[in-house]
Amino acid sequence: MSLKDRRRFLQSMGLAAAVTATGSCQAQTRTGQIASKKAARKFKLGLASYSLRKFKLEEALAMTRRVGLEYIALKSFHLPLESTPEEIRKAIATIKKTGIELYGGGVIYMKDEKAVHQAFEYARMAGMKIIIGVPMPDVLGLVEKKVKEYDIMVAIHNHGPTDKIYPTPGSAYKKIKHLDRRIGLCNDIGHTQRAGVDPSESALKYADRLIDVHIKDVSKAAKEGRTVEIGRGVIDIPKFIRTLTKINYAGIVSFEYEKDATDPLAGLAESVGYVKGVIAAS
Amino acid sequence: MSLKDRRRFLQSMGLAAAVTATGSCQAQTRTGQIASKKAARKFKLGLASYSLRKFKLEEALAMTRRVGLEYIALKSFHLPLESTPEEIRKAIATIKKTGIELYGGGVIYMKDEKAVHQAFEYARMAGMKIIIGVPMPDVLGLVEKKVKEYDIMVAIHNHGPTDKIYPTPGSAYKKIKHLDRRIGLCNDIGHTQRAGVDPSESALKYADRLIDVHIKDVSKAAKEGRTVEIGRGVIDIPKFIRTLTKINYAGIVSFEYEKDATDPLAGLAESVGYVKGVIAAS
Repeated sequence: MSLKDRRRFLQSMGLAAAVTATGSCQAQTRTGQIASKKAARKFKLGLASYSLRKFKLEEALAMTRRVGLEYIALKSFHLPLESTPEEIRKAIATIKKTGIELYGGGVIYMKDEKAVHQAFEYARMAGMKIIIGVPMPDVLGLVEKKVKEYDIMVAIHNHGPTDKIYPTPGSAYKKIKHLDRRIGLCNDIGHTQRAGVDPSESALKYADRLIDVHIKDVSKAAKEGRTVEIGRGVIDIPKFIRTLTKINYAGIVSFEYEKDATDPLAGLAESVGYVKGVIAAS
Repeated sequence: MSLKDRRRFLQSMGLAAAVTATGSCQAQTRTGQIASKKAARKFKLGLASYSLRKFKLEEALAMTRRVGLEYIALKSFHLPLESTPEEIRKAIATIKKTGIELYGGGVIYMKDEKAVHQAFEYARMAGMKIIIGVPMPDVLGLVEKKVKEYDIMVAIHNHGPTDKIYPTPGSAYKKIKHLDRRIGLCNDIGHTQRAGVDPSESALKYADRLIDVHIKDVSKAAKEGRTVEIGRGVIDIPKFIRTLTKINYAGIVSFEYEKDATDPLAGLAESVGYVKGVIAAS
C-alpha cells in the first residue's frame, strides 16, 4: 500500500491522515496565526475506557459524555473478548444511543495465534477500526495477515520500563516498520515518559506510524512515575499537542486516566479540561 | 494613598500588584518567550465557595483541595455573616488545617449602614483581606471610611444585565474611581460577557482597580447566557488570561462554577484544568 493509498484509506475511515512522512512534516511556528493552526488541527479527543474500569458500560458511557468526549476505545472490562455476537450487538446498541463513537478496542494482549484470531473477530463484530494491542513478536506475521484480511488497524501499545518487548514507541516501531502500514503505534505518553523518552520527540520520529495516543501525565520521568491528573505531572503537554498538530496527526487522542480507579471523574475531567485549554491557547 | 503606596500595601498583603496604570501596561507579544512570560505571571488560582454552596465547609474544603486550589473566598453558606467570634475562630481553624488560604468573603450585599458594619467586622474577625461585595451606592462613603479604618479591600462585584446598579465593571468603576484605591472591582467575567462587554477589554480598561476575578464561562453573550464548564462557552479564556498577565494582575482568579449545584466537582475540575492548560500553553 503506497503512502498515498494509506492516506486515502485512513481518511475513508474518518481517521488518521497521520501518514505524512516524518521528513516532510511542516513545522508550524507560533506566529500567532491561531485561526489557521486551529483549522489545521485534525485530531479528536476520546477515552480509553480502562480509565473507567470499575464502572459498568452504561455508567462509563455516561461519564464519558459528562466530560465531553465523543470517541471511545473499549477495554475488555466493558466488552469481554469472549462476548457472543449477541452480547456485542447489545453493547453496540447501548453505545450508539449515547452518540459516542466506538473507534477501537484495547489494550488487547495477543500472546498466541488463538488470541490474534479472537481479537480480530471481536473487533470485526464490534465494528472497531483499530485494535490497540500488544501482540507477541512471533505472531506479528499472523497479525499482518489479519490486518490485510479484515482491514482493521493495529496500534501497538508501549508499556514503559518494565515492558520487555515494547517499552517505548521506538522499540515497537523497529518490529513493525517493515509490515503493512496499517500496523503502527499507540503512543502511551505516560509510559513513554517513564521510559525516559520525550513523548513529543517519539511522536515526531515515528509520525508515519502513529495510529492512536494514550494521553496522561506522570509524576516522574522514571519507572516509579505514577499517573496523575494531566498538568500536575512532568510531561510537557503543550509541546506534545503542538507536535501532534505539526505531524498532522488526525487520529484520536484518548485519555487514559489511571488514578482514582473507584472515583475517577474529577481527575479525568480536570485532565480533559487541561488538554482542551492547551489546545485553545496553542 | 499614592500609586506607589498602594502597590506596597498590596504587596505586603501578598496580593495584587495590579496597580499598574492602564496606560503604562507593557503589552507582551506572543514571541515564544514562554519562560519569561511565566516568570511575569503573578496571579494565583482560587475558589469562590459559592460554587460549593450545597456542601458543608469541611466538604467544600476537601473538594477545593481535590481540584488543586489553594485560595478561597467564602460565601455566607460556609460562614454566616452573623457568626459569633467563636464560630469564626472554629471555621478558621478548620480551614487552616487544610492548607487553604482564606483570602476573602463574598459576595456580601451591603444594603445599609448596618450591613456595612457587619461585613467589615465579619471580615476583620475572619482575617479576610478582601470583601467581595455589593454595597448600595449611598453607603459607599461609609465603605470608604471602613476600608481606611480596617485596612480591608473591597472588590465590587458586577452581576450582569439584570443588575440595575453594577451590571458591568465599568458601571462599578464610575462609582468608585474617586474613592480610596483599596476599593476596586471583582470582575465576574460571566456576568460581564452576559452584559455584552468583553471581559478582557474591561480587565484592561479598569486594570488599576482590579482586585478580584470570578472566572467562569457562559453559553451566550446575552442575558439568557447560562454558566457552563470553562471552555464550553463563548468567553475567550486564552485572551483573558493573556490580559491578566499583560496588566500584571497579582491577585486571585477565583473559579465560580455555578452549574450542577448538587454535583459540581466534575465541572469545576474540568474548568480548573482548562484554565491551567491555557496558562501552560500561553
